[in-house]
Amino acid sequence: METKLEAAVIGGSGFTGLELLKILNNHPLVAVSFTTSKTYDGMEISEAFPSYSDKSCTKKLKFTVIDKIPKKELSTIDVIFLCLPPLQSMEFVNDHLLDFKGKIIDIGSDFRIKDPENFKTWYGTEHKLKNILPDFVYGLPEIYKEKIAGSRFIANPGCYPTSILLALAPVLKDESLMIEDINIDSKSGVTGAGRKVKPEYLFCSVNENFFAYSVLAHRHIGEIEQEIEKLANKNFKVSFTPHLLPVNRGIFTSIYCKVSGKGREIAAGNMESGKITAGILKSFEEFYKGSIFVKFLGPRIPQLKDVVGTNMCQIGIAFDDRTGTLKIFSAIDNLLKGAAGQAVQNMNIMLGFNEAEGLVV
Amino acid sequence: METKLEAAVIGGSGFTGLELLKILNNHPLVAVSFTTSKTYDGMEISEAFPSYSDKSCTKKLKFTVIDKIPKKELSTIDVIFLCLPPLQSMEFVNDHLLDFKGKIIDIGSDFRIKDPENFKTWYGTEHKLKNILPDFVYGLPEIYKEKIAGSRFIANPGCYPTSILLALAPVLKDESLMIEDINIDSKSGVTGAGRKVKPEYLFCSVNENFFAYSVLAHRHIGEIEQEIEKLANKNFKVSFTPHLLPVNRGIFTSIYCKVSGKGREIAAGNMESGKITAGILKSFEEFYKGSIFVKFLGPRIPQLKDVVGTNMCQIGIAFDDRTGTLKIFSAIDNLLKGAAGQAVQNMNIMLGFNEAEGLVV
Amino acid sequence: METKLEAAVIGGSGFTGLELLKILNNHPLVAVSFTTSKTYDGMEISEAFPSYSDKSCTKKLKFTVIDKIPKKELSTIDVIFLCLPPLQSMEFVNDHLLDFKGKIIDIGSDFRIKDPENFKTWYGTEHKLKNILPDFVYGLPEIYKEKIAGSRFIANPGCYPTSILLALAPVLKDESLMIEDINIDSKSGVTGAGRKVKPEYLFCSVNENFFAYSVLAHRHIGEIEQEIEKLANKNFKVSFTPHLLPVNRGIFTSIYCKVSGKGREIAAGNMESGKITAGILKSFEEFYKGSIFVKFLGPRIPQLKDVVGTNMCQIGIAFDDRTGTLKIFSAIDNLLKGAAGQAVQNMNIMLGFNEAEGLVV
Amino acid sequence: METKLEAAVIGGSGFTGLELLKILNNHPLVAVSFTTSKTYDGMEISEAFPSYSDKSCTKKLKFTVIDKIPKKELSTIDVIFLCLPPLQSMEFVNDHLLDFKGKIIDIGSDFRIKDPENFKTWYGTEHKLKNILPDFVYGLPEIYKEKIAGSRFIANPGCYPTSILLALAPVLKDESLMIEDINIDSKSGVTGAGRKVKPEYLFCSVNENFFAYSVLAHRHIGEIEQEIEKLANKNFKVSFTPHLLPVNRGIFTSIYCKVSGKGREIAAGNMESGKITAGILKSFEEFYKGSIFVKFLGPRIPQLKDVVGTNMCQIGIAFDDRTGTLKIFSAIDNLLKGAAGQAVQNMNIMLGFNEAEGLVV
Repeated sequence: METKLEAAVIGGSGFTGLELLKILNNHPLVAVSFTTSKTYDGMEISEAFPSYSDKSCTKKLKFTVIDKIPKKELSTIDVIFLCLPPLQSMEFVNDHLLDFKGKIIDIGSDFRIKDPENFKTWYGTEHKLKNILPDFVYGLPEIYKEKIAGSRFIANPGCYPTSILLALAPVLKDESLMIEDINIDSKSGVTGAGRKVKPEYLFCSVNENFFAYSVLAHRHIGEIEQEIEKLANKNFKVSFTPHLLPVNRGIFTSIYCKVSGKGREIAAGNMESGKITAGILKSFEEFYKGSIFVKFLGPRIPQLKDVVGTNMCQIGIAFDDRTGTLKIFSAIDNLLKGAAGQAVQNMNIMLGFNEAEGLVV
Repeated sequence: METKLEAAVIGGSGFTGLELLKILNNHPLVAVSFTTSKTYDGMEISEAFPSYSDKSCTKKLKFTVIDKIPKKELSTIDVIFLCLPPLQSMEFVNDHLLDFKGKIIDIGSDFRIKDPENFKTWYGTEHKLKNILPDFVYGLPEIYKEKIAGSRFIANPGCYPTSILLALAPVLKDESLMIEDINIDSKSGVTGAGRKVKPEYLFCSVNENFFAYSVLAHRHIGEIEQEIEKLANKNFKVSFTPHLLPVNRGIFTSIYCKVSGKGREIAAGNMESGKITAGILKSFEEFYKGSIFVKFLGPRIPQLKDVVGTNMCQIGIAFDDRTGTLKIFSAIDNLLKGAAGQAVQNMNIMLGFNEAEGLVV
Repeated sequence: METKLEAAVIGGSGFTGLELLKILNNHPLVAVSFTTSKTYDGMEISEAFPSYSDKSCTKKLKFTVIDKIPKKELSTIDVIFLCLPPLQSMEFVNDHLLDFKGKIIDIGSDFRIKDPENFKTWYGTEHKLKNILPDFVYGLPEIYKEKIAGSRFIANPGCYPTSILLALAPVLKDESLMIEDINIDSKSGVTGAGRKVKPEYLFCSVNENFFAYSVLAHRHIGEIEQEIEKLANKNFKVSFTPHLLPVNRGIFTSIYCKVSGKGREIAAGNMESGKITAGILKSFEEFYKGSIFVKFLGPRIPQLKDVVGTNMCQIGIAFDDRTGTLKIFSAIDNLLKGAAGQAVQNMNIMLGFNEAEGLVV
Repeated sequence: METKLEAAVIGGSGFTGLELLKILNNHPLVAVSFTTSKTYDGMEISEAFPSYSDKSCTKKLKFTVIDKIPKKELSTIDVIFLCLPPLQSMEFVNDHLLDFKGKIIDIGSDFRIKDPENFKTWYGTEHKLKNILPDFVYGLPEIYKEKIAGSRFIANPGCYPTSILLALAPVLKDESLMIEDINIDSKSGVTGAGRKVKPEYLFCSVNENFFAYSVLAHRHIGEIEQEIEKLANKNFKVSFTPHLLPVNRGIFTSIYCKVSGKGREIAAGNMESGKITAGILKSFEEFYKGSIFVKFLGPRIPQLKDVVGTNMCQIGIAFDDRTGTLKIFSAIDNLLKGAAGQAVQNMNIMLGFNEAEGLVV
């Protein structure tokens, strides 16, 4: 425990960055060497954000800016986390990390979409680092654990995609189900929008309120469809509709899949009892048997409150025989399993630690 | 203003009953003669519920029980509202109102489903008053205003069905759209569940939480499909999934309709701008031109906070060309447009008053 | 009902201004002729704020700016409401209303403090209209109803002062109680801060949070002490500590008065039962006998939810014999009884209408 | 790390018990051997409460009842936590633990008040175990750390008393301040009331609401005054008024102390700037220098959100020179520093661990 590995957090004052700093502050095997923030440069984290307190009484971590970090200090970093807005991660890597030898975990969105054309469609601009784009592994450990373990670069998944892909993976992998149509209705807490000071995120704009937004072209669709295709070996266009929930944290996703042909027989169950056939239940159970951070509830519906504050994803399912609709419900904490927690999970895997080290189940 | 018409409220201490008492307390043309509550029999309303204050300083309305009301007093009532749990309205009508000469507005659920077999399917028991069941007009004024005006008995729609049917009516009426599939994801505030003292409705169970419930067979489906069939002249089985929102009041409904063939061309629009063709916009605008209580927002998404405390239903739409999905969003206050407010709107129409008398737009 | 009186609302797009527009939109005897907003100039209110819908289907009220209002149109206005930030009302009156013949109700804070020196202490600047400052009646109808009825200019009380002065008036008037010390701990919903787009009013800054602010020198203290002195015929320095509640609307005030000497005997009661002597109870009951908008609950504690959405102030009391502390609790809706509602109550009184016209009890 | 010490949790299904189980589930040096719950006997914790997931994938902890625990198993327990309602801890100790050799931490309220007469006054019944009552150390580590380290029995402080005593200790210890009067206005989140299924704790009863309760004789007063007397060497009767906040967790306490004579000079500062003299600031800083779980903010006001989810107490102060009032504000998470977290802090101290082991700062 004496010699902890060294981490750096770029963009430590956003919701995700701060959450990451808190996790690492309590992590037994890793210590943060530096963290950056333009707004709070020179300020102690615990002063800028009283919700953060250094576990060590003697050393108080301060925010800095990247230009004040000597090259030499950067070279001793074992793992660097990027918590930057869209399009800034690739700039940062380009400017500062091209000859960095440690591991990079990008919690931003720049390295998730592998096809540069597709990236351009959803992010409206050319990708700056097409050459290293393929080296970034999509960091969803329940699906790509081995790849993550052997990788040096991670593209940490988006919050919505995490809640959606974990819910869909077992049924997409199961070809017998014949999924025909995927309709996704997600609901996110307000931290999902980041620390933006805009009228629509004021307390009186959100409290006792609810609404849909970005109803036609949310950027996460590109990432979702890319991964669905990889899971199903088949192209799907999904309808995705995000909504804003009057809660601080958490994403609850309801997915409606039309099931047809033989799949319908497999899925069909008893409407009154809400039971579904053993087949689908077993698919989920087996898929997530070894996964400490996914809890499959069977026909029980997950609740946001049961995952908030943890790195868990909870999933429940139901089959509506009247309409041939398989309903899958998932819940995660958007700042943990949907961002900083999953990033640390990826780090643990990459560094050979226990996957759950420093994380709350 | 001197001689107000006389109203009675059966079941005045539930959320809906109390809301109704408050509206009528401020209504310029109607006064409540009596209201019943077993729990609060003999108690002043303003004592049992400090949120209610009699507008008159001299007369304090008290709760009573129906057995203490002399037949003669009942006979002077112009309009009686029933705010009773499922299966109790038909018992009450059977026991007390078979020779009542005034108007009856049932805010309960017993007279909404017209086919007794269908009623049995969804409510699990034989209907007690099959003979007068057909006399109850489904009280959705934006669709059945004339019938309501000429009727003596009203079955006030359920809260979910109100939010759903108002959103769907213009597209169901428009055959050219070729709607193929209807998937409904509704989110309701907690008053929708009534004043039940159960662990799942405790503050700590709901606050900062969100989840789906009754995901396979919510009773409102029977009512929704009955009315959809009447609007579309066609049978639809709808997938309906209600969720519990951590807010006191309001229902936000997201409806996803698959549009095909010629309908898709009609609906197709510009993904980037979120615009949809003039055709569908015009359908909605024309359908609700004269309706004071429906506000069609076009491509703007409604928000719960803009309708809470009012009798309004606000509706917005979007067409996702990538997947051929027409998305319709509606917002109502479940206790007003979804219950007591719509009941007063029906009363106003039946009594020949201004439709908005005593109601907040 | 044909010829309504004409009102104008200056500053119609803030929380208070919009609330006022909504009340007047439903008022049977008054109609808004124009309303101003720099931000929304030229825009329909119902477009800028979908929560507002014109009761008339044919005429849509638009925001304008004062410079576009012809002098002639201003001269037909019966009552003008000012909903402006501190220091702007006196500018507006100076610039536009010096020869205005109608009634002025200032919901801002410029005309509440009568002593120009005192005004300067709390607002940090010289008063611009010392000559007409004395003409503004402090618009707390439960105390100054007659003066209000005979006045042309009203200084509508602040939200905190309303909740505090209504709670204190009966005991301050009663000299036998020998109040020695007044300690006020108030808690306000977020609309009390106005529609400010600042980090501290973001949803994630307020939700699941609570804190005190302006703990040493809140501006309302000047107004509170001025009115206490008038009521008690005695000078009091009060300790006042406002807190921010994670709710949209409402102020709950807890007042702790040390009672001494004979007052203590009068107040002393039974700790176990929470009863207090008939004497104090009677003081409150008599003081508020004729007041439709104050509900005295005796030893019952008021709750915020029972007044939100209404123009009521609810008050309850308790006497702690162990420490000689009289505890008074009051609850109001800060946007109604604390601002726009009380302004309309004042207008009703000034215009000779029923005091409760257009207001919800 | 191999051989963890063994803990038992009596009453594991209440809010505090469950919180404790979660902390211990993540504690590196202690493991729970058994936990009891009458309601959930035989059920896996993670099944009864999906918010709990066993960190070990192989062993699932189940609830049991005490009668099913063999005496032998009880004898191997190193530390037993009691999370029981008032009056039940002393029954449990009497029935099961009189010859228990391990450590006992009572999170209930039975062993806090040392004087049996005083206990009877506040709890209405005779104490059952007067002989061992003196052996229980009041478990407030920031004040009694050494005693705790040497003790076998701990009376874990109440949630309100923790927030109050930590805020008062530095000024009570400082005789030069001449505190004359202590008025406490506390605001607690709903978990403070436990998992009671009562109408007043329903979501719709609490959300968007706020009120005071137990305004005359809250049981915690006995405990608060006992400890104040020990700190100040002087008797104080305090006025204490608890309020219910519409949040899940957290207590915010505002304390108003009248300071007189020389104390007033010491405290006096600059009203405009909100600064207070270095003297009081230094008292607090020194008092809490070595305390990892108390963060003194000086003249900055603490916020509930900054402590929720942590074991921290944050404190800020202000001196109102106009009225001679020293205002002290404190914030804690009622389930952590106010209950389960502090209990683990006590356990860590008793077992010779790092005080913060397994706890979030």
